[in-house]
Amino acid sequence: MTGARSWWGWGLEEAAYEGEALAGIGGMLAHRFEVEASSPVDPVDPTGVALPAPRVQLPEALADLASRDAVDRLRHGHGASFREVVRALHGDVPRPPDLVVRPRHRDDVARILDWCSDAGVVCVPWGGGTSVVGGVTPPSEPSISLDLERLDAVLEIDQVSGHAHIEGGAMGPAIEARLADVGLTFRHFPQSWEFSTLGGWIATRAGGHFATGPTHIDDLVAAIGAETPTGRWASRRLPGSGAGPSPDRWLLGSEGTLGVITDAWVRVQPRPTSRVQATARFVTFDQGLDAVRALTRDGLLPANCRLLDPVEATLAGAAPPDCTHTLLLLGFEAPERDLTAETNHALELIRGQGGEVVDGPTARRGDATGTATGGAGAWREAFLRGPYLRDAVARLGGIAETFETACTWDRAHELVATLRETAQRAATEVCGGAVVSVRTTHAYPDGVAPYLTVIAPGPRTTGRPGPAVGRAQAAAWDEVKVAVSEVIDAASATITHHHAVGRDHRTWYDRQRPDPFARALRAARSELDPAGILNPGVLTDAAVGPRSNA
Amino acid sequence: MTGARSWWGWGLEEAAYEGEALAGIGGMLAHRFEVEASSPVDPVDPTGVALPAPRVQLPEALADLASRDAVDRLRHGHGASFREVVRALHGDVPRPPDLVVRPRHRDDVARILDWCSDAGVVCVPWGGGTSVVGGVTPPSEPSISLDLERLDAVLEIDQVSGHAHIEGGAMGPAIEARLADVGLTFRHFPQSWEFSTLGGWIATRAGGHFATGPTHIDDLVAAIGAETPTGRWASRRLPGSGAGPSPDRWLLGSEGTLGVITDAWVRVQPRPTSRVQATARFVTFDQGLDAVRALTRDGLLPANCRLLDPVEATLAGAAPPDCTHTLLLLGFEAPERDLTAETNHALELIRGQGGEVVDGPTARRGDATGTATGGAGAWREAFLRGPYLRDAVARLGGIAETFETACTWDRAHELVATLRETAQRAATEVCGGAVVSVRTTHAYPDGVAPYLTVIAPGPRTTGRPGPAVGRAQAAAWDEVKVAVSEVIDAASATITHHHAVGRDHRTWYDRQRPDPFARALRAARSELDPAGILNPGVLTDAAVGPRSNA
Repeated sequence: MTGARSWWGWGLEEAAYEGEALAGIGGMLAHRFEVEASSPVDPVDPTGVALPAPRVQLPEALADLASRDAVDRLRHGHGASFREVVRALHGDVPRPPDLVVRPRHRDDVARILDWCSDAGVVCVPWGGGTSVVGGVTPPSEPSISLDLERLDAVLEIDQVSGHAHIEGGAMGPAIEARLADVGLTFRHFPQSWEFSTLGGWIATRAGGHFATGPTHIDDLVAAIGAETPTGRWASRRLPGSGAGPSPDRWLLGSEGTLGVITDAWVRVQPRPTSRVQATARFVTFDQGLDAVRALTRDGLLPANCRLLDPVEATLAGAAPPDCTHTLLLLGFEAPERDLTAETNHALELIRGQGGEVVDGPTARRGDATGTATGGAGAWREAFLRGPYLRDAVARLGGIAETFETACTWDRAHELVATLRETAQRAATEVCGGAVVSVRTTHAYPDGVAPYLTVIAPGPRTTGRPGPAVGRAQAAAWDEVKVAVSEVIDAASATITHHHAVGRDHRTWYDRQRPDPFARALRAARSELDPAGILNPGVLTDAAVGPRSNA
Repeated sequence: MTGARSWWGWGLEEAAYEGEALAGIGGMLAHRFEVEASSPVDPVDPTGVALPAPRVQLPEALADLASRDAVDRLRHGHGASFREVVRALHGDVPRPPDLVVRPRHRDDVARILDWCSDAGVVCVPWGGGTSVVGGVTPPSEPSISLDLERLDAVLEIDQVSGHAHIEGGAMGPAIEARLADVGLTFRHFPQSWEFSTLGGWIATRAGGHFATGPTHIDDLVAAIGAETPTGRWASRRLPGSGAGPSPDRWLLGSEGTLGVITDAWVRVQPRPTSRVQATARFVTFDQGLDAVRALTRDGLLPANCRLLDPVEATLAGAAPPDCTHTLLLLGFEAPERDLTAETNHALELIRGQGGEVVDGPTARRGDATGTATGGAGAWREAFLRGPYLRDAVARLGGIAETFETACTWDRAHELVATLRETAQRAATEVCGGAVVSVRTTHAYPDGVAPYLTVIAPGPRTTGRPGPAVGRAQAAAWDEVKVAVSEVIDAASATITHHHAVGRDHRTWYDRQRPDPFARALRAARSELDPAGILNPGVLTDAAVGPRSNA
């Protein structure tokens, strides 16, 4: 990663849409929604934003780890959801952390947690700050944002077992670069990959961009080390174990509430050298879903198996603007091996569901990570640019956000249709119009993960540029989000397949999880963190207060 | 399952070795260990064993669910480990449950737990009683054994998603029979499959007999329903979810300490119709390990990938008695598909490690579950007969038991060698001789699960037949078990890959698990089960006492 990180929006400042590109997006929105083109809002100068003075200070022994810098605090005062970004753009960051603290070593983490517990100061663990669910947003209590960027080392590589021991603050590109030196890859590529960390992936159960097989971080972790307020938690690295409930599975998805993930042993692998890709099209999205189901039910494990409705295919540049077909981007990857049998089996199933193969199959050999071509290449590029487009739409007064879920196949067709309609209706009610696109991100033998994008012209606002505008945009999205979340809940689908719970999904998460589990989780949390300092409000409510030294 | 279950030993009474077959085993032991052939001990008549009167009785509304029958109580007073079976054989069942209780419905389970909590009576959940780690053995407090055999229904099959909703007390054969009616299979075949239950598999994180891929029950469960002493725990059935730590993963491996698993939605699949099998041999076990590593590292997912050392190969009848080679039994299975590419890739890797293909590859088509031929067929038959052989050796005064672990590849060769030597030495010290065999049960890209069998002539005893003899045999095994468990622990391997923790593995489990995790687990347990009635002593210590009604 080079260049300066945006303090308010996604990724790198230099990668944001500006000038003509930004105006072009504004023109497209105006054309599509038949509204007047908006002038883009410029982000406020962060050095001019008035912030309350820090309410806490670290003891002298730790003081040099802390930053009181206002822009630093602003940047750590919000995550990367549309609702937070559109407000930050206007300098509206209601609860910045009092301090940003950057430990140099895991022992620092233990000392910081100790101090937080004694002082009753909230600790919000921060990886890359890419949470889209309010997972890194400080609550109202005095707080620190614990930025793990200095714990970024690849500590050890065990080439025999295919394991790497990596610190929690290491980001995607650094991990892959180090592993590539020895011919290996972690092969975990969430959309946020450039800007997010191993610890963050584990804490939020991140999903990689591969559609099937071991793509979730859950399956790629062999051991986890974490600091809790009451001691270090470190599991043995093992290929498998049946010794009680898996300790790692307790930390996976714990979202900073049980401990701060300082390091992990992860499963790495030889770089794949055989690849096949193909694109098929279907008259309807439902036919495409049936084809994906057939593939996964027959035990095929395509690396890419992404179904794009016509809107998504067009938005992503994978199809021309007049496309009316659903596209399926299909790819297999493996170490040097002939993939013809799997590919032919897959294409046969696709044709059996009415699909037409329009590109490929094309086989390639050699290490060629990230060199997808054709529809898959265009889609991948758009995928990585998506969050920047979202920021551009935010600046243009519009709405651009995504949501996702997963459900079993028996309800997939109906849920996708209902979600599409609900998002369209809710966004149109609030904004006067909307474009809703659907894709699938992950496929299983027993179900699928649909992912929807909503772009809308934004609510009518009459005021001058300023925080009220951003709040109105955020509120407009919130109305859409509530509507679709209720549909997800009513279908007994999951409120999140790979975006995590954070603070934003609590309403529906609380309905989804078994009640005794919620009580057990709270009890576990209280045991490990008696002062309630670890990311309160995430997953469960927690009362913060200095621990008694009884 | 037809026929009567043995009250003291494995499986069906009619399947036990008796008469000439039993004498033949005695002769082999005598020959191998150069000792005098023992006369087999006959199991005591269970109706003649003096048992203490039940210390508790169920309230009238539940009374018809309870059995006070002495043989029933004896059978539920022990699991299926060698150390328990060899004592039960002599009528030595030190802590039978006061009652055996058989709920008819999950509401009964809730009512029973409620009563147990009020009365401070321990509840030990019982599936098939096949625990080999003391997981179903009542502690000294007043207790009931909660036998779930009446909760045995396949409640619903969702053919679209490939899900089945099955009650916790359903056993392997009944589940497969019901699924076969509609062309499906659960494809989870632990060694205990004929006599163990879905709820037991989930509670103990059972491993199926397939070597790679989704063979562990962990990966086959889509939702779990459980009764806890403080309310029902039921997760949504989902193909995947990133909403917080997985509730299902908390119950998986909970061994009856967090709740009683009453039902689950599981992943079922079309019956595989394409199969290839082959057998290769290696000069050394280490070469075989390297070949298995190469296969899994290249992403191959053989259904069978079982490495047998010469002793194991001979014991299992997969090789002639003079065999000095290590055998690798390899098989691939899939829905109708050409498996040539995977097979050729695998055989190439095997040859690259010095392996010689001695049988196959043989491809077969059609539904042919359980029709492995050649070495694989012989091995499978011996695998299912193993526990009966163990019982026969117990009757002949010997020792026959297994233990297992898993470790990363970097330490696999050394750990296998050290375990083999340690078992040989320890058993020889105690018994004057021993046969130790090694196989692998599961293979991963990052490691392997070795499984060892120890057969020894038993300790010298001078007393008359009776409980002291069984206790001496049990104590002899315990010495071996301690020795090998210390080796496993020192290597940072797992104390159990798929046998669970129970009461017998506590010493090493307590060292293995992260301390904060242990505290969190205890806290969760206290929250769900304030009276501490659920399987105390398993996983963690727990104080039993009637809950206060505060």
